[in-house]
Amino acid sequence: MEKLKIGITQGDTNGIGLEIALKSIIPEGFTEICTPILFANKKLVTQTLHNIGESLKFQTVASASEARPGKISVVSIGDSNLQVTYGSPSPESGHAAFESLRAACDALENGEIDALVTAPICKEAIQSEEFKFPGHTEYLESRFADSDNPDSKAMMILFNDDIRVALLTTHLPIAKVSEAIRADKIIEAVKRLDHTLRRDFGCDRPRIAVLSLNPHSGDGGLLGNEEKSEIIPAIRSLNDEKILAFGPYAADGFFGTENWRNFDGILAMYHDQGLAPFKTIAKQSGVNFTAGLDVIRTSPDHGTAYDIAGQNQADPTSMREAIYKAIDIVRARERYDDASADPLPISVHKSTNKPQ
Amino acid sequence: MEKLKIGITQGDTNGIGLEIALKSIIPEGFTEICTPILFANKKLVTQTLHNIGESLKFQTVASASEARPGKISVVSIGDSNLQVTYGSPSPESGHAAFESLRAACDALENGEIDALVTAPICKEAIQSEEFKFPGHTEYLESRFADSDNPDSKAMMILFNDDIRVALLTTHLPIAKVSEAIRADKIIEAVKRLDHTLRRDFGCDRPRIAVLSLNPHSGDGGLLGNEEKSEIIPAIRSLNDEKILAFGPYAADGFFGTENWRNFDGILAMYHDQGLAPFKTIAKQSGVNFTAGLDVIRTSPDHGTAYDIAGQNQADPTSMREAIYKAIDIVRARERYDDASADPLPISVHKSTNKPQ
Repeated sequence: MEKLKIGITQGDTNGIGLEIALKSIIPEGFTEICTPILFANKKLVTQTLHNIGESLKFQTVASASEARPGKISVVSIGDSNLQVTYGSPSPESGHAAFESLRAACDALENGEIDALVTAPICKEAIQSEEFKFPGHTEYLESRFADSDNPDSKAMMILFNDDIRVALLTTHLPIAKVSEAIRADKIIEAVKRLDHTLRRDFGCDRPRIAVLSLNPHSGDGGLLGNEEKSEIIPAIRSLNDEKILAFGPYAADGFFGTENWRNFDGILAMYHDQGLAPFKTIAKQSGVNFTAGLDVIRTSPDHGTAYDIAGQNQADPTSMREAIYKAIDIVRARERYDDASADPLPISVHKSTNKPQ
Repeated sequence: MEKLKIGITQGDTNGIGLEIALKSIIPEGFTEICTPILFANKKLVTQTLHNIGESLKFQTVASASEARPGKISVVSIGDSNLQVTYGSPSPESGHAAFESLRAACDALENGEIDALVTAPICKEAIQSEEFKFPGHTEYLESRFADSDNPDSKAMMILFNDDIRVALLTTHLPIAKVSEAIRADKIIEAVKRLDHTLRRDFGCDRPRIAVLSLNPHSGDGGLLGNEEKSEIIPAIRSLNDEKILAFGPYAADGFFGTENWRNFDGILAMYHDQGLAPFKTIAKQSGVNFTAGLDVIRTSPDHGTAYDIAGQNQADPTSMREAIYKAIDIVRARERYDDASADPLPISVHKSTNKPQ
């Protein structure tokens, strides 16, 4: 099987992005697993290698298409004047993060890489005329959603080998969450989750848990009505379509009793509801996956960690897992698409009474 | 040291309340630890003992003041006509839960018991003219808060031996959480938490973590402004008063990196934010404590579990922990109050030039 080309961004250059990227791909044998291509500032790669006390022979390439198996390649982004001030975001670090992301997405678009793994950005510093999004997920959606297909939307999934959590709403202030809880959106999200569990995770008949919005599932309406008005009707409608959706489950009991172990996927209503328990369970092994698009992108489930940037203290576990999982998803999707494609040509019965 | 009298309610009689209460107190030697007093329907005690295949000699007493050390006592609540329909709440089960709670609170008020441990209720079924509260915590506040002291308010704390989580808002729909996040309320809650950590948990100089409201701590204002407008100013003001409050911390990273291990107490902004990670960590060992009042009340951190009610499947671990922790808190408070009281009489210098 040909090795997959995995594109990796540098993230915010004042954070831990390049450190965890390099720590992930340097270990001997890594290029046996895939062909890594860093979209990064060359000077900063050298500086980061120095910071972490490592040496590395890498190939500088003009485009990912030139990357060779068995080698670590760098598509050089930006110039040698980049100023790095570890520990806090700056307009330069935000801009550098964006340039790396844009170049990697171009490569993804052109089929030069098989999957994208992104290092953490500062969502504030990266904002510009070209990037007006709350995060990677929304940027990728703007570039890769199929505008002719209303079902083509990005969905954030956090997962490791034990648990998969999808978010109905992501980068939304708590004040705006309630109004975003609508039955049609829940139905759409569960269907998207169902599809990605089948296509990208190899689940045959996925069982999906839907969490409640309010404490105690709204306690029969005393603590909020969205369960009755939106979530329960959505689950019923999904069940009518033979989708194995269950719930709604109050989040605290669901995680506390380990009921989550009974499901292939979980739909949380908002960011912290899904991610706080998820990270408590997954610790360093959590990976973020942008489901719902034709392209495959993963990332570590943590941020820029400015407090330890440039200090050789960053743990690359989640970044490395993100690379491994991107490979797994590419392969799972290939298998699913192969199996779903009709392997035999349809035998068309030729009509014998066609007009002469 | 005299054994403490611990009052225990029956909870919703169609749930697992009496089952976990009896399973907690029946084991040999339990009456060496404290003197348990059940506020329960006598017929149902007998029926539950039968369900769980246990026998027990208990004393029926007219009031908790009659309970004797070394014995299990039952203050009989309701009559022998109580109908039990395990598995779903009913007006009868809600009323029975309330009668037990009221009687136990009366005993608490009269000093007949040293602490109260409550079994789970159905917050919907218990509603009546006499009980119009979202839960136990608010009912206890209405009975035991000192109306002359504006600082006398109940606060829900979930804890085990490793972690203590207090909630700024409790039984509130998500739609109403944002407007309840106010600097003055946060200051008040952290001070209350600081005080209970000192008085009830024996922490000398408590370190308190304050969680953010919004994803990524609001990401500099992009994802909500309450961090800037309310939470950060509250923490600064607390620091000015030498209270060791830190944060605000984004909930997902805070729990994912195990940063919570660095703190004596955590203030979460709302129910699921605190409780979902807490229960993920604490599993069966979590206990709910109503801090901030003169009386001491704990409970298991789970609900009525109708799905397994009457089936001898309920795990009493959290209930038993609730009893043990109530005892610990009574003792910690005694030590604190003793140490805080001036142990030496103040030597008053007698004036020699008083008027003759």
